[in-house]
Amino acid sequence: MRNAIVLLAAAMMIPAAANAQLYKLTPEQLTELTKQNPFERFPDGRPKVPDSLIERARGMSMEEAFAILPGKGFRNQYEDGFQVLYPKKKMVGRAFTVQFMPARPDLDAVVNAKGRITNQTAIDMVQPGDVLVVDLFGKVTDATIVGDNLFYYLAKTAKASGLVVDGAIRDLEGISEIDMPAYYRKAHPSFLTNVTITGINVPVRIGNATVMPGDLVLGDSEGLYFIPPQLVQQTVDNADTVHVHDEWTRKMFDTGKYKSSEIYGSPKDPALKKEYDEYLKKRLAEIRGKK
Amino acid sequence: MRNAIVLLAAAMMIPAAANAQLYKLTPEQLTELTKQNPFERFPDGRPKVPDSLIERARGMSMEEAFAILPGKGFRNQYEDGFQVLYPKKKMVGRAFTVQFMPARPDLDAVVNAKGRITNQTAIDMVQPGDVLVVDLFGKVTDATIVGDNLFYYLAKTAKASGLVVDGAIRDLEGISEIDMPAYYRKAHPSFLTNVTITGINVPVRIGNATVMPGDLVLGDSEGLYFIPPQLVQQTVDNADTVHVHDEWTRKMFDTGKYKSSEIYGSPKDPALKKEYDEYLKKRLAEIRGKK
Amino acid sequence: MRNAIVLLAAAMMIPAAANAQLYKLTPEQLTELTKQNPFERFPDGRPKVPDSLIERARGMSMEEAFAILPGKGFRNQYEDGFQVLYPKKKMVGRAFTVQFMPARPDLDAVVNAKGRITNQTAIDMVQPGDVLVVDLFGKVTDATIVGDNLFYYLAKTAKASGLVVDGAIRDLEGISEIDMPAYYRKAHPSFLTNVTITGINVPVRIGNATVMPGDLVLGDSEGLYFIPPQLVQQTVDNADTVHVHDEWTRKMFDTGKYKSSEIYGSPKDPALKKEYDEYLKKRLAEIRGKK
Amino acid sequence: MRNAIVLLAAAMMIPAAANAQLYKLTPEQLTELTKQNPFERFPDGRPKVPDSLIERARGMSMEEAFAILPGKGFRNQYEDGFQVLYPKKKMVGRAFTVQFMPARPDLDAVVNAKGRITNQTAIDMVQPGDVLVVDLFGKVTDATIVGDNLFYYLAKTAKASGLVVDGAIRDLEGISEIDMPAYYRKAHPSFLTNVTITGINVPVRIGNATVMPGDLVLGDSEGLYFIPPQLVQQTVDNADTVHVHDEWTRKMFDTGKYKSSEIYGSPKDPALKKEYDEYLKKRLAEIRGKK
Amino acid sequence: MRNAIVLLAAAMMIPAAANAQLYKLTPEQLTELTKQNPFERFPDGRPKVPDSLIERARGMSMEEAFAILPGKGFRNQYEDGFQVLYPKKKMVGRAFTVQFMPARPDLDAVVNAKGRITNQTAIDMVQPGDVLVVDLFGKVTDATIVGDNLFYYLAKTAKASGLVVDGAIRDLEGISEIDMPAYYRKAHPSFLTNVTITGINVPVRIGNATVMPGDLVLGDSEGLYFIPPQLVQQTVDNADTVHVHDEWTRKMFDTGKYKSSEIYGSPKDPALKKEYDEYLKKRLAEIRGKK
Amino acid sequence: MRNAIVLLAAAMMIPAAANAQLYKLTPEQLTELTKQNPFERFPDGRPKVPDSLIERARGMSMEEAFAILPGKGFRNQYEDGFQVLYPKKKMVGRAFTVQFMPARPDLDAVVNAKGRITNQTAIDMVQPGDVLVVDLFGKVTDATIVGDNLFYYLAKTAKASGLVVDGAIRDLEGISEIDMPAYYRKAHPSFLTNVTITGINVPVRIGNATVMPGDLVLGDSEGLYFIPPQLVQQTVDNADTVHVHDEWTRKMFDTGKYKSSEIYGSPKDPALKKEYDEYLKKRLAEIRGKK
Repeated sequence: MRNAIVLLAAAMMIPAAANAQLYKLTPEQLTELTKQNPFERFPDGRPKVPDSLIERARGMSMEEAFAILPGKGFRNQYEDGFQVLYPKKKMVGRAFTVQFMPARPDLDAVVNAKGRITNQTAIDMVQPGDVLVVDLFGKVTDATIVGDNLFYYLAKTAKASGLVVDGAIRDLEGISEIDMPAYYRKAHPSFLTNVTITGINVPVRIGNATVMPGDLVLGDSEGLYFIPPQLVQQTVDNADTVHVHDEWTRKMFDTGKYKSSEIYGSPKDPALKKEYDEYLKKRLAEIRGKK
Repeated sequence: MRNAIVLLAAAMMIPAAANAQLYKLTPEQLTELTKQNPFERFPDGRPKVPDSLIERARGMSMEEAFAILPGKGFRNQYEDGFQVLYPKKKMVGRAFTVQFMPARPDLDAVVNAKGRITNQTAIDMVQPGDVLVVDLFGKVTDATIVGDNLFYYLAKTAKASGLVVDGAIRDLEGISEIDMPAYYRKAHPSFLTNVTITGINVPVRIGNATVMPGDLVLGDSEGLYFIPPQLVQQTVDNADTVHVHDEWTRKMFDTGKYKSSEIYGSPKDPALKKEYDEYLKKRLAEIRGKK
Repeated sequence: MRNAIVLLAAAMMIPAAANAQLYKLTPEQLTELTKQNPFERFPDGRPKVPDSLIERARGMSMEEAFAILPGKGFRNQYEDGFQVLYPKKKMVGRAFTVQFMPARPDLDAVVNAKGRITNQTAIDMVQPGDVLVVDLFGKVTDATIVGDNLFYYLAKTAKASGLVVDGAIRDLEGISEIDMPAYYRKAHPSFLTNVTITGINVPVRIGNATVMPGDLVLGDSEGLYFIPPQLVQQTVDNADTVHVHDEWTRKMFDTGKYKSSEIYGSPKDPALKKEYDEYLKKRLAEIRGKK
Repeated sequence: MRNAIVLLAAAMMIPAAANAQLYKLTPEQLTELTKQNPFERFPDGRPKVPDSLIERARGMSMEEAFAILPGKGFRNQYEDGFQVLYPKKKMVGRAFTVQFMPARPDLDAVVNAKGRITNQTAIDMVQPGDVLVVDLFGKVTDATIVGDNLFYYLAKTAKASGLVVDGAIRDLEGISEIDMPAYYRKAHPSFLTNVTITGINVPVRIGNATVMPGDLVLGDSEGLYFIPPQLVQQTVDNADTVHVHDEWTRKMFDTGKYKSSEIYGSPKDPALKKEYDEYLKKRLAEIRGKK
Repeated sequence: MRNAIVLLAAAMMIPAAANAQLYKLTPEQLTELTKQNPFERFPDGRPKVPDSLIERARGMSMEEAFAILPGKGFRNQYEDGFQVLYPKKKMVGRAFTVQFMPARPDLDAVVNAKGRITNQTAIDMVQPGDVLVVDLFGKVTDATIVGDNLFYYLAKTAKASGLVVDGAIRDLEGISEIDMPAYYRKAHPSFLTNVTITGINVPVRIGNATVMPGDLVLGDSEGLYFIPPQLVQQTVDNADTVHVHDEWTRKMFDTGKYKSSEIYGSPKDPALKKEYDEYLKKRLAEIRGKK
Repeated sequence: MRNAIVLLAAAMMIPAAANAQLYKLTPEQLTELTKQNPFERFPDGRPKVPDSLIERARGMSMEEAFAILPGKGFRNQYEDGFQVLYPKKKMVGRAFTVQFMPARPDLDAVVNAKGRITNQTAIDMVQPGDVLVVDLFGKVTDATIVGDNLFYYLAKTAKASGLVVDGAIRDLEGISEIDMPAYYRKAHPSFLTNVTITGINVPVRIGNATVMPGDLVLGDSEGLYFIPPQLVQQTVDNADTVHVHDEWTRKMFDTGKYKSSEIYGSPKDPALKKEYDEYLKKRLAEIRGKK
């Protein structure tokens, strides 16, 4: 019953650890913290939403996540107000989280006692398909998580799926030529300085949202949704229904025969309702047959 | 002289009314309120700026509206600070107005006594060529007037010319694929809730502007102008003059022979001034001949 | 069944009316709109919360209003962010509402057709015990509802209980010498201009709150609550219970024998709980006996 | 050498723990984290700046902390922009820190698995002389750490020295009658909800400052300084010098014989400089003799 | 006719100048620039509004300045949004202006070529009765024009009448014990650094106002008015009329016999109007006889 | 040694001057003020960074300016927060500066005594390759420096390289069709009014930056850098090194063999470091050979 006892282990527990950030979770702790995850995990315990679901999530919108999450009590998973590098490009991937705090020399000395932990320490741990999610507490000057070289590394070498930073980036011009989605508060020419990394792959706060390692990160021109692994399947399935609903609704609108309120949200006429139900059933079968 | 007495009738006066919003104007009241309108009207009394003027207004800019309106005492007809869905696409149409207030159950009970009045109640009343102008008092969360389905209905079925909302929209991704201009404060995934419709086709406030039903709404990447029907002809005519003025000014600039101050706003050299006056006369004749 | 038919009459319906604002309610309409009011009314139909309840409400805080209203579905009755003239002085009174919109000459001409309606038109209608509640839509420059002379009139001649303006006041120095509570967004030396009164004693919006004529207005250093008449008794009664609860809780804290969680919100020890219940019963009897 | 290995232990490591917040430090971990502390510690490892130094710090200003800290590399220990309950009352005490994050049900379930952790869990741990420092990430609605009852408990029963919350308080009216300093972003009537406690006595972020458990918290009408224990003595000593310097400078100004630049920052005339040096020496001896 | 030719001379024109800021006006230039000044001047050319008018201005409000200035075309002489050190204390004095810009080493080198120009350079030039008006372009961190020692010097040694800074002060606690009005954007513990003085007694911008050396500065809890010398007499005289008007208006209100609109702005009844005119005449004679 | 004495001459010194703004520098004064300029000058003394360097600067980013300037003490040369007309188009040119202040009639009378100075006065002085840099102190309404006609003149007739205005432009729609970069705070339909030009080609403040006439202005989608002439060569040379560094770094990243921290900022392996050093040397030779 070791797991029941030592749930969440801490930073620097393992003597040989190269990294020693303030907050660090062992695979067992991270597994415990995300125990509702129905999928496989990375060796470090992080949930690994399967590629097939990531692919299906690419067709989802913010609203389709909103349709499920608040109803399940997850009211703090959406955040917006970012600069969006590619507003026309959907971002989908698994959250790899990093937490910073304003630096102070005494904390710095403890955290970096066994080798300096930098943004590159975290970047070098990013896995293909990850979205790097960085809590820089809204700071922009001196809070540039990457410039174009590290952004290039993330996109091309690490094969990351995107970047979210509640802070800044630099080299916007260079970054604008690299094909990976990014969400940031501001671009600024300054360096990353006067901050300390206090956690890698721990729960972080991005504005009003709490993000856990392994959350599915979904981004479009509107904002960002951080979807817990245990709700991904349901959210994606429901999105299929929404898509068919919209498809049928617009078909009806196209006839020009109805007021919007006769058809939407749900057809008022029972005959139409029946027609819709059958359409939905058929189309869902087609869609899911394909997948 | 009934009109002089019963000017503005009120909500719910007609027992069979399906809608019973707090403020409602009879056709006589709306006619009285907009009595300077020189054009035809819709059956509900709303001024109907003719299609031919709407077409000419498509060539106008905010500055050309500004050139006329404040001088006539209309200093509160411009508003900006919106997200603009299609910055390169001019929006022109007749204002169809809707007013919301924060919900309270006692007001709600009275307003909805004879059937719930929703955003779709108003949307189903929109006429071809209308711009739906919605006063949601700047609220964004829970203040999404439409998602992509109702936006589709407005654009395709109702054949509206655009949307202005001092509030939010949802489904930005879906809306971005539908070809109708929209001006909104923010996109947000939440539903429209916790508000009450208090008026349809009554005067509304959009930021610092007062909008009346039937105003000509003009929008470009800069902002929005709400032009009273009685000033549309003069504004459009003056814009023709401005266009010729600019045409001639740039021709002169192209010669490279003049300082800007010798030519603009008005040529300093009397000979040039004469040349300009003749050019203006000729060009206006051509332009208006065409129309 | 006249009432069922002519619910809300409109502005300028009565030929002899001296005032002709855009929105105006007859006594019947205002009575219908506030039909849950359990108290007497003013001749114009406005609910008149009795003086005895106003007196008891003077002991209430924002939190004691919050304890009842959202639970009854009234989630939009609180607003803050004001400059508070006397932070140590509780404000309690009946809402007398005024609505302004940005001026436009065509609207102005209709509204003022039978004599100019100004801020003084409304001020001269204020009754003793009223709080003048003014919707100036957050505008401050050129939006000064009163200076020190009219503030003096309200306080001394009209015997008003206070002023709330989602806009500005002028003559702050002079006003600071007059003993009546006021809540305003800013003080500014400019005049009230470039706006039109569009309603007196109609529902108005003050920030995020909807205020109805006759609401009980409660103000302290924190903010403002607008309490519908039908909920005043329950709110005031519940406040008595809260006061006794706090009295007893602090007595227990004063013993130094308990952790806060053993006593508050409710005593954990059944014996203490019983002791508390008896104390509450006894004290409520005393308090209400007095009243 | 276990300590050298297991530096910072984590939440829920000890099976019998009543509290199980996400981040929790054992006494050994907190000692390691604050190992530059030259003073005694509380049983939980938190540094305990002696009462005598707290008393001397009462004479200090923000500027006297600024005079030492940035020069030692501590550039992120100041924060302002708070509502200050008692602007004329200096606040001095030892930081007791609490960290919140936006709630999510899966995190909540783990954190509260062994009994719900609430604001009262932390409040009941506060020691005499502590300042409760709460990271509510700037949230105000639904983020009211205490009302007047718990504020009373902190002030009277726990004998705390003050409250700092990067969030809200409620019951401002009641709190205004209790004699303990408080710094908060806003007062709001709502309850504390939709958040989770993720750490007690761990490093927290208050705006741009990083606060460690046991920091000396200094507050006046200007803002707040969080001084690491290891710099308290030097800061307080230096403040004595500043006070004498100011005393002498004003004496010289009082003579009316000098331009400000002849005396301040340092006297230009060598004879005056010598006079000052002697004065400083004598006065410091007097001051320190007294202490 | 040298004056007509060499109107405004510049910085560093006079070889022996101790100060060499970027912009500097000779007495002749400053005289030319303020040539509408009807009063005496300081040796440096700065207008010297007489003490007797300063004394009378002490009874004026922002509104009484507003009553005259915009009508004379002076629409940019008011500014607010300051922290006000003593909201109950009127500030009146002659503007002594200082302009800063963000520092750059090449500009610094030229400006300070003949000796470093600092805030103390300007402070040492302040005359009794002056209000030091400092353009620090709204910057607050590192933009603290004075701490308590220099504030003490200004108040006690220089006998200044007040301080206005579009920037910050430090040592707010110490300053709060010194009896001189101050208007500042923020208090902050940092030093004044990273800026350069670019002008002393030149026109400066304070927010939206343009201030000229020698303007009469008037401040109360509302904001600040900068009154050109040539309009001081008229403004002060008009304020007397306003005071009598208010006195009489309130007397009438006290009778309880009138609606506000019957008396204010001007009595409607011709008999009352006559009574008022006589009262005004008599009281003005009394007031001015006294002065 | 005349130059050492009469450094900065002033406005209106030359009797025949057509322009008489408050602040004006003679060629000698401007030369003195920018004496570190290593390049030729315009007849009015303004530094003229050579076209060849302007061409090379076109390849630079904000970060490459940041790499040099703060280290040389130039910490106030960057500003952002603008609307950017062409985010994909680099702007490079020589600063031609204009300063405005809020208008006041007495200042206006002096400044315009010899002929009205307007925005066109300055625009007519702009030289090919200049960027017009306008200090309108952040004002937007009534602060539109140009509309599309004058923008056309700047781009086509004056052959300017761009526009920066800490204020507004008008005719955004028309301007969007003219191919010249522009940085502005807002577009607004109002005219330029209620302001006075107080200097042409004097040091100006654009937000937090101090700009001198002749600075190299560099703009991209991120923001603006104002580079003093004396640092242009070094900045451009260093940018070459950065470009090669990035080129090589990405080559290494492309191999997929390295963690980012092994290569960037500098290769950790001495053999790689050597390889890099040789690559850099070779590439710089190639690049500079070409130029």
